[in-house]
Amino acid sequence: MILTVTPNTALDITYHVPSLRPHASHRVREVVERPGGKGLNVARVLAALGHRVTVTGLVGGSTGRSLREQLAGTENLTDALFPVSGATRRTIAVVDAATGDTTQLNEPGPLVAPAEWSDFVASYERLLPSCSAVALCGSLPPGVPVGAYAQLVRAARGAGVPVLLDTSGEPLRRAIAARPDLIKPNAEELAELTGSHEPAEAIRDARRRGAHAVIASLGADGMHAVTPEGHWRAAPPERVRGNPTGAGDSAVAGLLSGLVEGLDWPERLVRAVALSAATVLAPVAGEFDPEAYEELRAKVVAGPVAPDPE
Amino acid sequence: MILTVTPNTALDITYHVPSLRPHASHRVREVVERPGGKGLNVARVLAALGHRVTVTGLVGGSTGRSLREQLAGTENLTDALFPVSGATRRTIAVVDAATGDTTQLNEPGPLVAPAEWSDFVASYERLLPSCSAVALCGSLPPGVPVGAYAQLVRAARGAGVPVLLDTSGEPLRRAIAARPDLIKPNAEELAELTGSHEPAEAIRDARRRGAHAVIASLGADGMHAVTPEGHWRAAPPERVRGNPTGAGDSAVAGLLSGLVEGLDWPERLVRAVALSAATVLAPVAGEFDPEAYEELRAKVVAGPVAPDPE
Repeated sequence: MILTVTPNTALDITYHVPSLRPHASHRVREVVERPGGKGLNVARVLAALGHRVTVTGLVGGSTGRSLREQLAGTENLTDALFPVSGATRRTIAVVDAATGDTTQLNEPGPLVAPAEWSDFVASYERLLPSCSAVALCGSLPPGVPVGAYAQLVRAARGAGVPVLLDTSGEPLRRAIAARPDLIKPNAEELAELTGSHEPAEAIRDARRRGAHAVIASLGADGMHAVTPEGHWRAAPPERVRGNPTGAGDSAVAGLLSGLVEGLDWPERLVRAVALSAATVLAPVAGEFDPEAYEELRAKVVAGPVAPDPE
Repeated sequence: MILTVTPNTALDITYHVPSLRPHASHRVREVVERPGGKGLNVARVLAALGHRVTVTGLVGGSTGRSLREQLAGTENLTDALFPVSGATRRTIAVVDAATGDTTQLNEPGPLVAPAEWSDFVASYERLLPSCSAVALCGSLPPGVPVGAYAQLVRAARGAGVPVLLDTSGEPLRRAIAARPDLIKPNAEELAELTGSHEPAEAIRDARRRGAHAVIASLGADGMHAVTPEGHWRAAPPERVRGNPTGAGDSAVAGLLSGLVEGLDWPERLVRAVALSAATVLAPVAGEFDPEAYEELRAKVVAGPVAPDPE
């Protein structure tokens, strides 16, 4: 099975209001709630593609209970979340009915005790031997050491399990030195990591820092893969319009599913780009439109790119 | 004991953000959570004043579990909330750190089935014989009939228990005809009920519609009581500045505690005005500052008002 790790799981709540006006009082028309955090989103897409997937990460409080109850019905998905004493955070997305614009409010997450973190790492290490691949996803909750992802990358590599890392900031900087197989930064995360706003140069720098392969997501320009096996680029046939929430998580699911199925890099990229675009097109944020996915998969083209001069 | 009824209980969540900007993403700095809904707020103030109080109303889901867990530690307060299948609503108050201004997002509440409502009414009727007074507070959740408060007022009067009603809109209009002992509208609610923006005229109309006594809260101008025993007005010694959240609920607690202690109207009004102002002055929204309360109680003056010509 594929393992996804979400240290900072979330109960994602969406509110629909006619229009958000600061300092006014609003009656929320519609409330939608679902389990969230990048790793859970990735897992849901993998499960929908027919892969067996196990989710772990930290979960707690009444928000955590809600999250687990809502996860329980998902086919192909096993809950191996690790309980902590603090409460799983909420994220609130307030959608303006008129414009579709979203205002986001993200709680920081539970304060995790050192003993909770080390017990979690031990449980993660027990899961690794049965994994075909692992994805480490999202932010770290308060109290978790900033080197946490470096520790999880090393454990996966020690167990011989391919590891994809999707995070940002200092946790990414620390973990990249532990030599993950794959990172999937966007342009902003690459620039923050390397100081360079020129993607080709930033990708080169990220690989020098330790990442074996870098798959940079460049928004509407698609994805750029720089790997030990070669350089490729893939983009959707035309610009897709819709809600980009979860598009990056769908791309991670595409890359992981392609990896465990033994697809070559261009095929993995096509899958990631098509899933990502099909997520933007889906009516519900974070889900993908299966018909659009099949159509796009036939249309997305991945082409080789000449390596940059080093 | 005093009974407070909150059909639409809430988990009140306060987020502190540097500044709320529509369509941006915000990291919430601080999250505060507490049991809410007007009747629970009234009960908390009564309990703090040393009164034994029982809370009932509808509660459900994981938000409801949280609410009950947080209520469990309150001295003098007994939880007789009635479980329903839907989830207790959340209210989110987003406070701008710079200005202190608040943006409010209120979920509608659970959809209540007719059988759930009639079972609740039966449990409410079993509580009435042991009550010294009852307060019916706040909005009705979806599915509860608009005549719900009229039904609860009639049951209380049938059991010989004095009943205070604090709601608005159509539920108030219907329930006032069932002749509650006391209503506590603000100027806006009075105008909505009667069509008159002139408080004296609106109060007269509200009494004609069925309320035995009307205690109108007129913001910084204090409170105006029109009762079968006479007319009084009380105001704080000076304008108080702070957060008015919960000030109305504290006033209700003042009126109820005065009623069950057998205080006369001017004394009840002084207590209500002092508690209300001490709530505006408290650093935490919805709580009252006990020292400020004692000081204000000595300073607030209630004076008789000549009855308006009918």
